[in-house]
Amino acid sequence: MFYHTQNLINPIVEDEPDPSAANALQEGLGGQFGEMRTMMQYLFQSFNFRGDGKPYRDLIQGIAIEEISHVELISKTISKLLDGAPGYMGKKFEVPGQGGVATMEMAKEQQNPHHFIVGAQGAMPVDAAGNPWSGSYVHCNGNLVLDLLDNLVLESTGRLQKCRIYQMSENKTLRATVAFLIARDEAHEMAFAKALETLGVEWNKLLPIPKFDSSQYPEVKKLIDAGVNREQYHFRLDGSQMAAICKGSAPANDGTQLVTLAEPQQKYPIPDAPERSEEFSPGLDPELQALADALTEAKKKVKGVAAMKRSKKK
Amino acid sequence: MFYHTQNLINPIVEDEPDPSAANALQEGLGGQFGEMRTMMQYLFQSFNFRGDGKPYRDLIQGIAIEEISHVELISKTISKLLDGAPGYMGKKFEVPGQGGVATMEMAKEQQNPHHFIVGAQGAMPVDAAGNPWSGSYVHCNGNLVLDLLDNLVLESTGRLQKCRIYQMSENKTLRATVAFLIARDEAHEMAFAKALETLGVEWNKLLPIPKFDSSQYPEVKKLIDAGVNREQYHFRLDGSQMAAICKGSAPANDGTQLVTLAEPQQKYPIPDAPERSEEFSPGLDPELQALADALTEAKKKVKGVAAMKRSKKK
Amino acid sequence: MFYHTQNLINPIVEDEPDPSAANALQEGLGGQFGEMRTMMQYLFQSFNFRGDGKPYRDLIQGIAIEEISHVELISKTISKLLDGAPGYMGKKFEVPGQGGVATMEMAKEQQNPHHFIVGAQGAMPVDAAGNPWSGSYVHCNGNLVLDLLDNLVLESTGRLQKCRIYQMSENKTLRATVAFLIARDEAHEMAFAKALETLGVEWNKLLPIPKFDSSQYPEVKKLIDAGVNREQYHFRLDGSQMAAICKGSAPANDGTQLVTLAEPQQKYPIPDAPERSEEFSPGLDPELQALADALTEAKKKVKGVAAMKRSKKK
Amino acid sequence: MFYHTQNLINPIVEDEPDPSAANALQEGLGGQFGEMRTMMQYLFQSFNFRGDGKPYRDLIQGIAIEEISHVELISKTISKLLDGAPGYMGKKFEVPGQGGVATMEMAKEQQNPHHFIVGAQGAMPVDAAGNPWSGSYVHCNGNLVLDLLDNLVLESTGRLQKCRIYQMSENKTLRATVAFLIARDEAHEMAFAKALETLGVEWNKLLPIPKFDSSQYPEVKKLIDAGVNREQYHFRLDGSQMAAICKGSAPANDGTQLVTLAEPQQKYPIPDAPERSEEFSPGLDPELQALADALTEAKKKVKGVAAMKRSKKK
Amino acid sequence: MFYHTQNLINPIVEDEPDPSAANALQEGLGGQFGEMRTMMQYLFQSFNFRGDGKPYRDLIQGIAIEEISHVELISKTISKLLDGAPGYMGKKFEVPGQGGVATMEMAKEQQNPHHFIVGAQGAMPVDAAGNPWSGSYVHCNGNLVLDLLDNLVLESTGRLQKCRIYQMSENKTLRATVAFLIARDEAHEMAFAKALETLGVEWNKLLPIPKFDSSQYPEVKKLIDAGVNREQYHFRLDGSQMAAICKGSAPANDGTQLVTLAEPQQKYPIPDAPERSEEFSPGLDPELQALADALTEAKKKVKGVAAMKRSKKK
Amino acid sequence: MFYHTQNLINPIVEDEPDPSAANALQEGLGGQFGEMRTMMQYLFQSFNFRGDGKPYRDLIQGIAIEEISHVELISKTISKLLDGAPGYMGKKFEVPGQGGVATMEMAKEQQNPHHFIVGAQGAMPVDAAGNPWSGSYVHCNGNLVLDLLDNLVLESTGRLQKCRIYQMSENKTLRATVAFLIARDEAHEMAFAKALETLGVEWNKLLPIPKFDSSQYPEVKKLIDAGVNREQYHFRLDGSQMAAICKGSAPANDGTQLVTLAEPQQKYPIPDAPERSEEFSPGLDPELQALADALTEAKKKVKGVAAMKRSKKK
Repeated sequence: MFYHTQNLINPIVEDEPDPSAANALQEGLGGQFGEMRTMMQYLFQSFNFRGDGKPYRDLIQGIAIEEISHVELISKTISKLLDGAPGYMGKKFEVPGQGGVATMEMAKEQQNPHHFIVGAQGAMPVDAAGNPWSGSYVHCNGNLVLDLLDNLVLESTGRLQKCRIYQMSENKTLRATVAFLIARDEAHEMAFAKALETLGVEWNKLLPIPKFDSSQYPEVKKLIDAGVNREQYHFRLDGSQMAAICKGSAPANDGTQLVTLAEPQQKYPIPDAPERSEEFSPGLDPELQALADALTEAKKKVKGVAAMKRSKKK
Repeated sequence: MFYHTQNLINPIVEDEPDPSAANALQEGLGGQFGEMRTMMQYLFQSFNFRGDGKPYRDLIQGIAIEEISHVELISKTISKLLDGAPGYMGKKFEVPGQGGVATMEMAKEQQNPHHFIVGAQGAMPVDAAGNPWSGSYVHCNGNLVLDLLDNLVLESTGRLQKCRIYQMSENKTLRATVAFLIARDEAHEMAFAKALETLGVEWNKLLPIPKFDSSQYPEVKKLIDAGVNREQYHFRLDGSQMAAICKGSAPANDGTQLVTLAEPQQKYPIPDAPERSEEFSPGLDPELQALADALTEAKKKVKGVAAMKRSKKK
Repeated sequence: MFYHTQNLINPIVEDEPDPSAANALQEGLGGQFGEMRTMMQYLFQSFNFRGDGKPYRDLIQGIAIEEISHVELISKTISKLLDGAPGYMGKKFEVPGQGGVATMEMAKEQQNPHHFIVGAQGAMPVDAAGNPWSGSYVHCNGNLVLDLLDNLVLESTGRLQKCRIYQMSENKTLRATVAFLIARDEAHEMAFAKALETLGVEWNKLLPIPKFDSSQYPEVKKLIDAGVNREQYHFRLDGSQMAAICKGSAPANDGTQLVTLAEPQQKYPIPDAPERSEEFSPGLDPELQALADALTEAKKKVKGVAAMKRSKKK
Repeated sequence: MFYHTQNLINPIVEDEPDPSAANALQEGLGGQFGEMRTMMQYLFQSFNFRGDGKPYRDLIQGIAIEEISHVELISKTISKLLDGAPGYMGKKFEVPGQGGVATMEMAKEQQNPHHFIVGAQGAMPVDAAGNPWSGSYVHCNGNLVLDLLDNLVLESTGRLQKCRIYQMSENKTLRATVAFLIARDEAHEMAFAKALETLGVEWNKLLPIPKFDSSQYPEVKKLIDAGVNREQYHFRLDGSQMAAICKGSAPANDGTQLVTLAEPQQKYPIPDAPERSEEFSPGLDPELQALADALTEAKKKVKGVAAMKRSKKK
Repeated sequence: MFYHTQNLINPIVEDEPDPSAANALQEGLGGQFGEMRTMMQYLFQSFNFRGDGKPYRDLIQGIAIEEISHVELISKTISKLLDGAPGYMGKKFEVPGQGGVATMEMAKEQQNPHHFIVGAQGAMPVDAAGNPWSGSYVHCNGNLVLDLLDNLVLESTGRLQKCRIYQMSENKTLRATVAFLIARDEAHEMAFAKALETLGVEWNKLLPIPKFDSSQYPEVKKLIDAGVNREQYHFRLDGSQMAAICKGSAPANDGTQLVTLAEPQQKYPIPDAPERSEEFSPGLDPELQALADALTEAKKKVKGVAAMKRSKKK
Repeated sequence: MFYHTQNLINPIVEDEPDPSAANALQEGLGGQFGEMRTMMQYLFQSFNFRGDGKPYRDLIQGIAIEEISHVELISKTISKLLDGAPGYMGKKFEVPGQGGVATMEMAKEQQNPHHFIVGAQGAMPVDAAGNPWSGSYVHCNGNLVLDLLDNLVLESTGRLQKCRIYQMSENKTLRATVAFLIARDEAHEMAFAKALETLGVEWNKLLPIPKFDSSQYPEVKKLIDAGVNREQYHFRLDGSQMAAICKGSAPANDGTQLVTLAEPQQKYPIPDAPERSEEFSPGLDPELQALADALTEAKKKVKGVAAMKRSKKK
C-alpha cells in the first residue's frame, strides 16, 4: 500500500517558460528510458518477485517508490516550463477570443503542439518525439541476474540522455531538475551494480555510465558534494532490507561509500499552478466558481478531522 | 513524495491456477480502462492541476494513490493465477530439460504465451488481447468539469468490464480481487459524481453504472455490507481536503452516505511467490545462491538500523 | 455530405453463434486490408484529389461510399456471430451473478476476449490478431497512377484474405457476408484495373487476384450469376462521372462487361439485436427503462414529422 | 446504406496557406478526440446497438452520419491550408528539378514533413503530433448510459481542443471551419446531454464544456445567431426517431430550444484542388493526360444516364 | 555491402506441423528480444559507430551479419512448422471451395490466425502475442560501454526466452532451431561480455544468463560438444578485427576458450516449400503457370552466365 | 547465409551538416515505404516463397540483399548530415558542461530531438515524423502475382517520396544518396514490372512512377547515363536465376534494356565517424581508452589470421 505527502523530492527553480526545453524534458518523463519506465519496471519486478531474496526485492521496490516521486518532480518541472509560455512570447491574454487575436499562435510552431491543444500547458505521458509511453518498455524477466543487469542498463541510459538534455538548455528550471536526476540515476546505477557485486561481478573502472566528471555541471556538483549520488532511500514506513546491499564501497571504485536512508534528508514544497484562461483551465465560470468556493469554508475543519481519524487509527 | 508499507489493500484468496482467468484479469490491470490507466490519469491530473480548488485536487490525488495499491493488488492476483500452472496441468518439473519432456507445453496454447515466455508466470502491463498499455490512454485536459466527467466515465467503464470478468470465472482468487475492484470502482464513481454534484449536477437514479444489484455477487455483497463501496481514502500522511467533497448523501441517491477515511480499515499481508525453475526465476544456481544468502545474515540488524534511522528523522 | 437509409447492402443469414468465426471476420473489418481501410483510403483520396480528372475522382469516391456500407454489413455480421454465444455454449443467463455461476466462462478462452469484456458481443475496430486499426494503413499519395495501383493491390489483398476466411468456417452467417465481399472486391479490382486500362495498361489474363474459379463457392456463384461482381455503384444523389470509366469489357478479359448503376438492385432490412443482460447491454434497470419507454409513445408522430420536414425541404 | 452529394456542410473560406495551422487542425481530424473518432465511435455504437431504444440509436447514428461530413470538411480545410505552401513561401515551381533549386525546402522544417513527403499537400489520418489514428480510440461499451456519457465527454473534449486551436491562428480558412465545429460540437453536447436528461440527469449550469461565452469568437457568433449550435440533423432518407429526444429546452438551461431537422438549412460547393507538379500530383505526363482527357467527352452523357437510372429505380 | 549464398546456418529438422509451436517461435523472430531486434540493433550500432575502436565495431557488425542468417533460419523453421497444418489436422484439400468443406477450419482457432489469413503458412514479423515488430526495440546509444552492456542484456534475454520456448514443445523442427539459437546466444553473450572484460569488468561466475546446465537439452549438448557456443564468426569477405577481442578464456570462467572464424564450419541446404492451393500460394492458374514455366528453360544458361560474370569481375 | 565487405554501394558526398535534411531522409530509411521496409518485405517474401518459380524467388531475394546495402548507405548518409551539427551551428564544444554553455541548444528545436538525445547524431529506425518502423509495413501474401504487384507499388511510392525529398534540400550529401535511390528504385520498378510482364501484363507508357524526366536532377542524370537505373544485381556468391527475368527491353518501353550483374560495377569506401564528446560517444575516458587501445596492437596479426583461416576453408 502506498502513501503520499505534499512534498517534492527536489525544488522547482524559477526561470522563464521554455516550451522546447519542456519538450526535451519529456524524454526523461515518458521516454523509453524515462522515469515512467523506471517506476513501472521496478514496481512490476517487485510485485512479481520470486524466491526469498528479500534484500534484492526491497532494493528494487525502494527505488520503484522513489521513481514515483521522480515522475511527480519531472511533471511539475515540465508544467513550470510550459506555464505562461503564450503570454511570455508576447500575446497578453485575458478573455478567450477577445479582440480576435491569436493568443496562442506560438503554440502551433512548438515541438509538440499537444502541450497546448491536448494538455493545458502541462506534462504528458509521451517522449520528446511525441510518442506515447508504452507498456512494452517494461522489462520484467523474473530472472534476478538479468533483471539487475537490465536495470543497470536502464539507469545508465537514463543518465546518458539526461546529460545530453542538460546541454540543450541553460534554463534554470530545467537544469535544476535534470541535475538532480543525473545524480539520482548515478545513485541507482551504484545500487544495481552493487547488487551484482554481491553476486560476484567486479566493475573495476567501468562505472558510472557515461564515464565523465559530472561535477563540471555546477548544479550536479552541489548534489555530489552533499552526497546525493551515493545515498539510497527505501521510503518504507515499516522498514526495509535494502541496506543489506546498499552499503560499503561504491561500485564506481572511487573511494566513496554507499549509504541507505529511509528518505531524503530534505523535502521541498509543491508549487501551485495558476489558472490559464487561454486553456480554459480549470475553466470555472463565475457561477461554477461560487459553487466550488463553497467548499473552501469547510477546509480547515476537514483537515483537522482527517488528521484526527488517522491518528486514532494508528 | 510517496511511501510504502508491505501490505495489500485486499487479501489474495487461495485457489487453483487458471492462466485464462489471469489473462482476462489483465484487462483490469493494463487495459484501456484498467488500474494502470486510473493510476496514471489521476496522478497526471493532480500534478498538472491548476487553480485553488484544493479539495478537487486532493480528491483526484487521493484516488490516484489508492490506484497504485490497486495495481499492486491486481498484479499479485494475476501472478497467483499463473503461478504453477504448468505443473498444475500435469507436468512435474524439477530441472530444466531433464528427461526431454516439454514441461511447459500447455503454455504455447494459452491466451497470452508471453506470460510464460516473456514473464515468469507474472503480471504484465498489457490488456487481455495482449496489447501493451499506452500513454495515450491518459486523459488530462486541465478543465476541471471535463476531467471529473472523464474520470466518472473511466470508473464506470472499469466497473462494467470487471462485472463482465467476474462472470467469466468461478476461480476464487480472481473473484475476490474483482469483487473488491467492483466495490471500489463504485466508490470512485460516487466520489467523482459527488464532485460534479458540488458543481450543480443532479444524478437522480442514473448511478452507479452499470445499474444493477451487484450484491448478487456474494463476494461484493460482503464488501457492500461493510460499507467499502461508500468509503473514500486519502492516503495522505499530512492531511487532505478530500472530505470537503466526499461526505453526505451518495450520488446513487439510495439513502447511503459517503465517508472519508485516511486509509482502509484493514490491511492484508503480501504473499511471497515461490521459485519457478522452469522459468529460471529467480534462477540462482548454487554458487550464486550462496552469495545471495550471505546477505540474509545481515537482515535483522539492517531492519533495526533502518527503522531507527527513520524514527530519529521523524 | 452523406446520407443514410436503414438498409443493408446484403442480407444477414441466420446461423448459430461462432465467436472464432467472428474473430476471423474481424480481419475483413479492422485488418490492414479490411473494409475500414478501403473506406478511409478512398475517402481521403477523394477529399485530397487534385486536377480535373473528375471521372477518376468519382470512381474512387463512389467506391468509398460503398465501403461505408460494407463496414456496416460486416459489423452487423460479426455482432450476429457473437450474439448469444455464452448461452449457446451452455450456460443459461438471466440475472447477472444469480447463482454464482460463471455465465460467460467460455469468453475467457475465445480468440479475442475483448469481444465480451470491452464490447458487448459486438464488432470492434481491430483485426483478427486483436491489433487496433491504424491510420497508417491509409495510402493517399496524390499521384493518380500510383493511387490506382495501390487501390488495385488493396482490393486484391482484401479478396485473397476473404477467400481464405471463407475456407475457415461453414457458418452460413459468415459465408453469406464473405461471399458478398469476395464478389464486390472482384468488382472493385475490375474498376481500378479498368481505370489503369484507360491509361494504357493491358492486363491480359492476370486478373482477378487471386486467380481461381470462385464460383466453386456456391454463395459466390449465385452473386456472379446475378452479375454482382461486374456492377459498379456510385451512391450519388446528384449524379456521377464514374460510368465514363466503368463500362465496356472487364479487365479480366473473360468476355464479361462492366456496368455502372446508382446503387445495388436490392436492399435488405437491418436486423435488430436483442438485449444481453450478461453484458449489461443496454443495461437499463426498470426505473431507467420506464423513462426510456416514455419516448416510445412519441415515435410515430416524430417519424411523420421528420419525414414531413424533409419532404418540405426537398 | 450510405449516399453522398457533392456538397460541403460549411464553406471553405479563402486565405493564405499556413502549414502550421494545417498541422494544428489535424488534431481535429485524426486526433484522439477528432472527427474520425466521433464518426467511427458513433457508427460502431449504432451498428452494435442492442434493445428497442430506437430514438437513442437514431440519435447516435444521425450524429455519426454528420461526422462523416465533418471529416470531409476538415480534410478539405487542411488541404486548402497546405495547398501551394512551397510557392507561397517564395520558391516558384514549374518543372521538378529544373534549375536544381530546392523548391520544397520549407517543407523539411514544417511541423509534420509528411504533409509534403507522404501526402501531396493534403490531409492525413494523423493528429497534430504526427501519431496515426488508432482504432483503440473508439469506445463502444454497449451500455446505453455509459455510451451516452462517453459521447458527451468526447464532444466536450473535442470542443475544448477546437477552442484552443481557434486561438492558435488568425487564418480565416482555419477559423471558419473551426468555428463551425465549435458550434456543432456544442450542438452534439446538447444532444447527448438531452438523452441523459431523458434518463433523469439534471445538468443545471454545468454545460456546455468548456463553459465560456463562445460568441466572443465572431465566426462562432454568426453561427449561434443562426441557431446552428442548437440544431440536430438526422441525414436519413427514410425518416428518424431522433426528434423524440432532440426537442424542447436545451440542457445548457439558457432558455434555448433544441430542434431536429433532416439536414442543415444550407449546403456549400466543394472546391477543386489544383495540380501540384512539385508533388507529382496527379502527375500525368502529356501522354497519360491525353488518355485521361479522352474520358471527358463522355462526361455529360454519363451523368444523364446515371441520374436516369436512379430515377427509374426509385 | 552484403552478399548471400543459398545456405542455412543450421539444418531444418523434419517433424509434423504444429501451429502453436510456430507461434511460440515467433517470439524468437519478431519479439522484443528476438532475432530481428538483434539484427537491426547491431546493424544500426555498426553503421553509427564513432571513434577508432575498430575491433569493437567489427565485433558488433560481425554478429549483426550472423543475425540476418538467424532471421533466415527461424523464418524457414516457422514456415516449416505451419506448412500443411490444415491438411495435417484432418481436412484434405485440393481445389479451393470444392465440396464446400471448411478446409482451413482449424486456422480460426490458432494462436495467431494471421498465419493463415494474412500469411500463407509462413513466418511474420510479429511476436508470440501478435504484436508487430517495432523500431523502438532498437537501442543505439552511441556510448560504447552502454551499447555493449545493452547487447549483453539483449542476448541474455533472448537466450532466457528460447530456453523457455524449448520447454514448450517436443517438436523436433522447433527444438533443433531453438537449440542452435540457445548455443549461439550464449556465444554472443560471451562475445559482448569479453568486450566488456577488455574494458575492465570481471564476471566471475555470473555468466551465462540464465545460469544452468543447458547440456541437459540433448540438442544443445551436441552443439556444445562441437564448440558452437564458443565460436565467433565475422562473415566478412575482406577480413575483420573481431578476433582481437574474441579470443582467450571465455567470460563464463569455466575453462573454455573463445575462437573467431570467418564463418561456421558447416552449411546446410535451404529446403523448398511446396505450393499450398488452400492459400492461393503461389496461386498461378494453368495459363499463368505456363508463362512462368517458360522461364525455366532459361535457368541453366542464366546460372552459368551469372557465375561467369561474377568470376570475371573478381 | 549472408556476408559483408566494408564497402558502400554509393559514395557519401561531403557537405555541411543539416539536421532537418537528415530528418526528411529518415522517411527513406524508416518510413512506411523506406529501405527498411523493402529490405524486410523482400527477405520475408523470399524466405516464405512457395513453389518452383526459382527465377521469381531469386529476383525478389536479389533485390532484398541490395536493400540491406541501401539501409547501410542511407544510415551513413543520415549520420553524416547530423554529424557535428551542434558545433556547426555555433557552439564550440570540448568538455561536457565546461563553462555552463548549452552546447547542444540547437538540438531542442530540431525536427526530431531524438537524433541528439536518444541517438548520438546517428540514424534511427524511424520515419520523418518520428514514428518507429513497424513490422506491419511488411506485406508477404504468398500469392506471387499479388506480391509482385505490391512490390511494384512499394518501389513506386519509395521513388515518389524520394523525388519529393530531393526537392527539399540542396545539400549535396543528401542529394547524392537520394539521387542514387531514385535511380535504383526505378531499376526495381523495372524488375518487378518485368516479372509481371512475364505473366502477361503490358505496361505501355505507364512507367516509371512518378512519370517525369528525372534526368532533370543532375545527380540522377549521371547515374542514368551510366545505366544504373536499368541494372539488376543479385549479390549471390553461388549464382542466381534472376537474369531469366531481368533481361530484354525495359517495361518503361523507352528503348532501354535490362541487364543483370552479380554486383554493382563500382564500390566505395565507408567513411569513419569522429568521436562526439557532447554525446559521450563513444565516451571512453582516458583509463578506458588505454584498455581499448591495447587491442590495436593486435590488429594486424588478427587480420592476417582471419583472412588465412578463411582462405583455408574455401
